[in-house]
Amino acid sequence: MATKKPLARPRSLGQLLTFATAATGAMCQDMLARHDLTLAQWVILSALWRRDGMLVREIAEYSGNNAPAASRIIDRMVERGLVTRQAASDDKRVVRVHVTDVGRSLEHLRDFHERVNARLLDGISAEEAETLTCLLKRVDANARRATGSDQWPKTTDPLNE
Amino acid sequence: MATKKPLARPRSLGQLLTFATAATGAMCQDMLARHDLTLAQWVILSALWRRDGMLVREIAEYSGNNAPAASRIIDRMVERGLVTRQAASDDKRVVRVHVTDVGRSLEHLRDFHERVNARLLDGISAEEAETLTCLLKRVDANARRATGSDQWPKTTDPLNE
Repeated sequence: MATKKPLARPRSLGQLLTFATAATGAMCQDMLARHDLTLAQWVILSALWRRDGMLVREIAEYSGNNAPAASRIIDRMVERGLVTRQAASDDKRVVRVHVTDVGRSLEHLRDFHERVNARLLDGISAEEAETLTCLLKRVDANARRATGSDQWPKTTDPLNE
Repeated sequence: MATKKPLARPRSLGQLLTFATAATGAMCQDMLARHDLTLAQWVILSALWRRDGMLVREIAEYSGNNAPAASRIIDRMVERGLVTRQAASDDKRVVRVHVTDVGRSLEHLRDFHERVNARLLDGISAEEAETLTCLLKRVDANARRATGSDQWPKTTDPLNE
């Protein structure tokens, strides 16, 4: 059976975004694998290192997951001994997530995102990076407006801390 | 219990890419929902409309999925009557995927990606779009180089058809 030339993909910004995001995710997983950590776990730890005792709902909003998905990630982090779920001292009905000593031992990864930024922007000037950020935010806003959800998840804009 | 100000996210290009891609995906699903089609199904149909009878492996390479994932998507498309799996006429051991009449009836969505591009790039000039494309390709290449996989999936570059 003769091998045909692979079918060309059409010019698609959506696909370029999808592929670049997948490649970035794979790079992050690769960088975190030596610490036996997934990217989703790092995102949650990076929040708890700065604000221990967050609610699952707050963690979900921060990470951009829905609450059930965030809860499943936290389940695995509890199994791994990275965090614990504890009743709040002021209201026993409220469950807060706390970092354990094991979770704290990984806090040298606090600025992991800076290392990711540096790798992604290798050979790209500060001015170009600023242009890329601005254009991506406009594309993001266009996509959200088109679906009628023109708000970022309820948290401060990540690029204007 | 007092509500705290949401925790700010740090400046992260990876996160901006992830959120923009998720928003784009949600917009696409929203646009395709009226046709009872998922984005993954459209990607496969858009390949088969141009080259009917592709192998699952070729479809996987085209769509950026691994073969088992592509096969699962095709399973659901078979259930929906959009495509069929058929033994090749020249070699009965080889299975090819063919579009049905139902799948053909959706071919007016062939240029769906152009509508997506137009929505995402609303208010963005052609020059800015070209800059965005170039910068995203450099970021993508950096991410792939960092993980030692500096090749796009085995198909023609989608942006240089």
